[in-house]
Amino acid sequence: MGTAQAGLGPGELRGFDGLYGLELLWCSDEQVRAQVRVRDELKQPMGLVHGGVYASMAEAMASLATALAVQEGGETAVGLSNATSFLRPITDGTIHALARRLHRGRTTWVWDVRFSDDDDRTCALTRMTIAVRALR
Amino acid sequence: MGTAQAGLGPGELRGFDGLYGLELLWCSDEQVRAQVRVRDELKQPMGLVHGGVYASMAEAMASLATALAVQEGGETAVGLSNATSFLRPITDGTIHALARRLHRGRTTWVWDVRFSDDDDRTCALTRMTIAVRALR
Amino acid sequence: MGTAQAGLGPGELRGFDGLYGLELLWCSDEQVRAQVRVRDELKQPMGLVHGGVYASMAEAMASLATALAVQEGGETAVGLSNATSFLRPITDGTIHALARRLHRGRTTWVWDVRFSDDDDRTCALTRMTIAVRALR
Amino acid sequence: MGTAQAGLGPGELRGFDGLYGLELLWCSDEQVRAQVRVRDELKQPMGLVHGGVYASMAEAMASLATALAVQEGGETAVGLSNATSFLRPITDGTIHALARRLHRGRTTWVWDVRFSDDDDRTCALTRMTIAVRALR
Repeated sequence: MGTAQAGLGPGELRGFDGLYGLELLWCSDEQVRAQVRVRDELKQPMGLVHGGVYASMAEAMASLATALAVQEGGETAVGLSNATSFLRPITDGTIHALARRLHRGRTTWVWDVRFSDDDDRTCALTRMTIAVRALR
Repeated sequence: MGTAQAGLGPGELRGFDGLYGLELLWCSDEQVRAQVRVRDELKQPMGLVHGGVYASMAEAMASLATALAVQEGGETAVGLSNATSFLRPITDGTIHALARRLHRGRTTWVWDVRFSDDDDRTCALTRMTIAVRALR
Repeated sequence: MGTAQAGLGPGELRGFDGLYGLELLWCSDEQVRAQVRVRDELKQPMGLVHGGVYASMAEAMASLATALAVQEGGETAVGLSNATSFLRPITDGTIHALARRLHRGRTTWVWDVRFSDDDDRTCALTRMTIAVRALR
Repeated sequence: MGTAQAGLGPGELRGFDGLYGLELLWCSDEQVRAQVRVRDELKQPMGLVHGGVYASMAEAMASLATALAVQEGGETAVGLSNATSFLRPITDGTIHALARRLHRGRTTWVWDVRFSDDDDRTCALTRMTIAVRALR
């Protein structure tokens, strides 16, 4: 029922997740918690957190959790679609993200990710569909 | 119909678009061309370009083009939803993006963005819905 | 917070919702419950409930609940986007639907709708974005 | 590349597609044309064509064309996600639909469907993702 992992702090993830500053707080095959601290280089021209940051966080959280769960069976996980709705801008503080698995199928997993600000207001939502495929 | 703009090279955009390296090649109110050069810090753990990069590019291109078009009328543009489908991974070269406006309404604009690799294969697709609102 | 309504049975709704057989069980500005009884004329060629039935139910539930809530203020509600994911087919029994409002903004409301079968398994999910506009 | 088919008139399709009145005009593995004639029982309470009608048409067109193409290889096609954006209402005449295949992968096909009114104005857009699976 989901293997919890120790958190990964800022700077410990490589690649794009390291670039924008993803911090993984908790990861199982049913739930993932993560956060990103807002800084100017995450913003769009009007000073709001760039919509791509939310989409990137959701992508990483759902893909990673699915990949960890299926790798034992010789499978891998890749994002199939990412549908993010933007509800309320964030301009400072921390972006808090909670991913919950909605469906675990043989070939696709579906996750919903909720993003909230420091006052726990819902700011964005992502539905991620992840394809599960045999490792080649 | 549409005011073309001079291109903006890498490093000329600030904030998140500068961080991941968006280069704007052409921008009108009907079409936007942009690109991002692949580098390791844009990748996810398996070595593919991170899905969030495509979503970020689409967000920036559609939002910017809409904002430029409506600002004369005292309005601004913010992303409402970003739906990205991932078709084929990119691992090196350049991510080429072409955004086309599908709809120009009073309160929402809709854009489709096609991402292709150096061999012009379609690698991802985004549908962006942008809200147009009065500047406060 | 939310005005409950008496249910509307099959045949009491007109137009398309009557055609496919929507039954409204509960409706407030935060939650809507509805169902459709499966019959052959709701199926696609392979004998599964047609994906359009889920999308239609979500559209109706979210639009109606939003419209009822904003009409006092002289506003109306129209669907802006409907994103439905299909997780598990339904072939008989009843399609149970629960819509929950995720966001209430000035110009857009966002709802999630969960569809389940008679065994309460999640079979489809819809994210509906509804535009709120002044009545002309 | 793509086997054209004779058209299917109203009443010739069974199940849900027959109920709402889908007419298939052209079908290959790359493009599908179809239409639905507007009548009162396709409308939502405000007198506009119900959003579910567009979603249903897209679902049918993309699923059918994919299924016909993959069945020779012993595979079948089922809808994975349906993302429909509503741009302009239709109240009478005919709903014209053109589906174009954007991607043909081993496990998923992606289609875009454009809906237009009798004046060829774009009224709705759907992105359909279809899963291709072995027949059991």
